[in-house]
Amino acid sequence: MPMTYLETPTQRVMSGNGIEYAYRDLGQSDIPLVLLIHFRGNLDNWDPALIDALATNRRVITFDNIGVGATTGTTPATIASMARGAIDFVEALNLEYVDLLGFSIGSFVAQEFALIRPDAIRRVVLAASAPQGAAGMHGWAADVIAAVGQPVTDPQGYLDVFFASSDASRLAGQEAMGRIFGRTTNHDEPTTWQTRQAQYDAVCAWGIPNHALLERLRAIDLPAFVACGDGDRMILPRYSHLLVGLLPDARLKIYADSAHGFLFQHHADFASDVNAFLDDPD
Amino acid sequence: MPMTYLETPTQRVMSGNGIEYAYRDLGQSDIPLVLLIHFRGNLDNWDPALIDALATNRRVITFDNIGVGATTGTTPATIASMARGAIDFVEALNLEYVDLLGFSIGSFVAQEFALIRPDAIRRVVLAASAPQGAAGMHGWAADVIAAVGQPVTDPQGYLDVFFASSDASRLAGQEAMGRIFGRTTNHDEPTTWQTRQAQYDAVCAWGIPNHALLERLRAIDLPAFVACGDGDRMILPRYSHLLVGLLPDARLKIYADSAHGFLFQHHADFASDVNAFLDDPD
Repeated sequence: MPMTYLETPTQRVMSGNGIEYAYRDLGQSDIPLVLLIHFRGNLDNWDPALIDALATNRRVITFDNIGVGATTGTTPATIASMARGAIDFVEALNLEYVDLLGFSIGSFVAQEFALIRPDAIRRVVLAASAPQGAAGMHGWAADVIAAVGQPVTDPQGYLDVFFASSDASRLAGQEAMGRIFGRTTNHDEPTTWQTRQAQYDAVCAWGIPNHALLERLRAIDLPAFVACGDGDRMILPRYSHLLVGLLPDARLKIYADSAHGFLFQHHADFASDVNAFLDDPD
Repeated sequence: MPMTYLETPTQRVMSGNGIEYAYRDLGQSDIPLVLLIHFRGNLDNWDPALIDALATNRRVITFDNIGVGATTGTTPATIASMARGAIDFVEALNLEYVDLLGFSIGSFVAQEFALIRPDAIRRVVLAASAPQGAAGMHGWAADVIAAVGQPVTDPQGYLDVFFASSDASRLAGQEAMGRIFGRTTNHDEPTTWQTRQAQYDAVCAWGIPNHALLERLRAIDLPAFVACGDGDRMILPRYSHLLVGLLPDARLKIYADSAHGFLFQHHADFASDVNAFLDDPD
């Protein structure tokens, strides 16, 4: 019987850099899919419905990066250092070759990982993503950071940013929150204010406008699946178009009537699309 | 009774630069829509079904740029000079403020027009387009230029490049060719080999890779509708994504099961989308 994400125990592994990473590991496949979570997220913030759908025929690994949740250390303030942390974690698990799925800030880390250590990655999924240096994304819109950037996280703020304003999206948001926050056992440690500050510094640095840096995308020369919600106000869909325009081998899907949390709202479709992409022989 | 494009007479106007431009002018509206045709195209190469649908509630003007078809002069070998020709034509007609619809090389000219003379343009439609300097578009693919670049134009080559390989697209292609090449009166002059050579030089120069030039798109600060066929091999859909990622205010539609000639294949949908875009109060 397959394990479900809610039942998957948190494990710990010590890295060569002396960081003890908290992670969860479920499903089976030769090439594992390593997931990189959103701003202020920990192991518990992945929608269990999405993880279970991905893990049906695939090994899926979620982890807390340095200083996040139950992982030791101090959260670094640059995407490059976060990518070093992800590489350190992958090495600690002796994973030679992985697929990556990065969501939001996690998709920035995935891009950097692919640039620093291309030989370790087979395919990459960039969900709600944007390239470093694109104009118009220096920090999040005032209402967005107000909704998700407070010292005490607010379910309503999360709902407002991760889901669209339609009844269907709001309902999907309530359901996703029920799955995520309905967890009664096996909790991760909460993320700290230090993590929030360091991650938002990294997001702002990533968004410093620098047109020349967009050319970095040409070096992410592996199959990429770029996905976003059509109404995402945290990271606008235009940046997904930009990624697809500049990455050497990318395909795009924009999910209807959704926002930053499109992959939780459309968990079944998104998991199916990710599995099809990762299993695509081309 | 509205005039149809097949019945619209060719008119001539002398410009300040001493060029006599051939053009056709039909429909009525305060702001005319000026059309810029594809590689080697003249007045007759617009699908009459598309023009008639656009002209139902709008003034639509097609013209031959310098040295093309019945217009006098020698076709220049740069997009910038072609944009100067388009501006010269618009001034000759005393049009102060226009909408532009550029198709293929015509969409390059439309971008340049918008950069040189932004105050004269309200909205722009970029069909099968690409920005100057994007990597991977230095001239067309060998099979594409072989199909449409010969001294004597070949209906089969046109069909192969402008339409997709599906039965539905091929049938639509035959129908579009029937409308375009079924014209029995009121012909334009054919385009010459000089025009072909100069235009292809301009296309190749536009495609010289130069990442920095992509930033020019930020200066096309007016509403833009970017449209392409999902199977276009002449100008890949990735460049439409790139345009939408970098233009300040652009929307995108990709038309299914079609290629470079998507706007003829899907003439009714495309005309409806263009009219909705041009009539959009936002």
